[in-house]
Amino acid sequence: MDFIKQFSDYTEKIEEYLDDVVPLADNYQSEIYEAMRYSLLSGGKRIRPVLCMAVCDMLGGSLTEPTVIGSAIECIHTYSLIHDDLPCMDNDDFRRGKPTNHKVFGETTALLAGDGLLNKAFEIIGNADVPDNKKILCLMNISTASGVDGMIGGQVIDLKNEKNADVSVEELKTMHSLKTGALIDTAAYCGAVLGDATEAEITAIKEFSSALGLAFQVKDDILDYTGNEELLGKPVGSDAENEKVTFVTLFGIEKSEEILNELTEKAKSALDIFGDKAEFLLEFADFLLERSY
Amino acid sequence: MDFIKQFSDYTEKIEEYLDDVVPLADNYQSEIYEAMRYSLLSGGKRIRPVLCMAVCDMLGGSLTEPTVIGSAIECIHTYSLIHDDLPCMDNDDFRRGKPTNHKVFGETTALLAGDGLLNKAFEIIGNADVPDNKKILCLMNISTASGVDGMIGGQVIDLKNEKNADVSVEELKTMHSLKTGALIDTAAYCGAVLGDATEAEITAIKEFSSALGLAFQVKDDILDYTGNEELLGKPVGSDAENEKVTFVTLFGIEKSEEILNELTEKAKSALDIFGDKAEFLLEFADFLLERSY
Repeated sequence: MDFIKQFSDYTEKIEEYLDDVVPLADNYQSEIYEAMRYSLLSGGKRIRPVLCMAVCDMLGGSLTEPTVIGSAIECIHTYSLIHDDLPCMDNDDFRRGKPTNHKVFGETTALLAGDGLLNKAFEIIGNADVPDNKKILCLMNISTASGVDGMIGGQVIDLKNEKNADVSVEELKTMHSLKTGALIDTAAYCGAVLGDATEAEITAIKEFSSALGLAFQVKDDILDYTGNEELLGKPVGSDAENEKVTFVTLFGIEKSEEILNELTEKAKSALDIFGDKAEFLLEFADFLLERSY
Repeated sequence: MDFIKQFSDYTEKIEEYLDDVVPLADNYQSEIYEAMRYSLLSGGKRIRPVLCMAVCDMLGGSLTEPTVIGSAIECIHTYSLIHDDLPCMDNDDFRRGKPTNHKVFGETTALLAGDGLLNKAFEIIGNADVPDNKKILCLMNISTASGVDGMIGGQVIDLKNEKNADVSVEELKTMHSLKTGALIDTAAYCGAVLGDATEAEITAIKEFSSALGLAFQVKDDILDYTGNEELLGKPVGSDAENEKVTFVTLFGIEKSEEILNELTEKAKSALDIFGDKAEFLLEFADFLLERSY
């Protein structure tokens, strides 16, 4: 298997779907659609929809269904970035090397574009060509993952943690498992549901995504410390500047790299039961470990 | 039928459900849950869930299902108010006689509380004890009504219209039909779906809710001009102050009252096919016409 080719086959389908489901508009809504597209089609890595597709693919499922459901999750991820960047949140000026949404369209439109993308995710799920029972399982899992007991809950902890040096490792892990992990978990879970996974397979996939999600965040913390600004598309050291507690501030770089390796190995070994079929996901875990942005 | 008693029977069920589905929390999320509850349980009229319940009730359906689905719509309505009041939107300090959400909890928490309520709506729908096919019809209809081609689209037009005297009657109607009408329509539609309405009944209910929604907005415009600040819980004349185009600025008070009466009659006559069973909804239309807040 050619990992890079497979990865871009997946992302091509996602880009095409997203471009289609949030189209250009030429009426009174042209600006809000433009703002939604600005952030949605700005070269994200598409980790979540790729994961959804790859899990379903591994199980022998179709690619159409996880493209749609994975793209809905990507809309939620994108809305969370737009709102996170707003002046009343992290007040960030750059994201993926481009000015943040509110810097281009103003706060009002950025706020509504975020609202529109969160809402769009559920429109996509509602209208997806997926059997009713699977659609509802995805809806339940995604909405819980993105809500106040999931991703939004993680944002709440994250904001509390700023300038608070007293954050424990457990609190940091809880924050990450909600803020970043929840959407990664639901992407993998939905892929499993769409691919008709057995209970044992779902358990293995959950173990995989849970370790992968935390590894992803540890890597983010490391990149914020050691990364290349040009590749990252945002200033390096912003966590330190905001006095944020991260894996690097708690453990140092060397130990953080060690944790990252352990988590990646843990994620990969959870896929043992799938044998050769897990090839793409195994390489995907390594890809996330080695990424430079 | 005792209209007031029936109305409060409905709202009692709604208040109980909302209080239960967005509970007090005593962990790291206590503040965001408190912020969500502050706006959600602040004495709204519950027009949308009551409509959902009353339509289903008229058709002989259960009250449990429309209580749940109607409450989801109320969560969406409430989130839209929180975000609408934010400094980057209308920058309002008071709502329903109380300081607005961001005035109490700060902009960051208010933003996330709004996000949380929008998300909660879809969690509620996902977990509702409603047959799969009806649940998906409700999901599709509600998510379209609240999205960029529905309510959010109306907010976009509304913001464009501020300080723009060149708004036509048609544009004003489009704005209202999206910003306020869409959620009222979907509340009635979901009540119809849950109550197993026939196609002809759905058509009649759509005619009813469409006229009712516009009447509701005309009344709002009139109240903003003639209302009692204490009853309204917000300053009178804020539309004029923001140089907003309203039915009153376009037609004057007398003609606006006339339009209001005509729309209410139109709404009521759409219910002819239901005969005596429409008693509550007919009185509901009059109640909205005569309300003083």
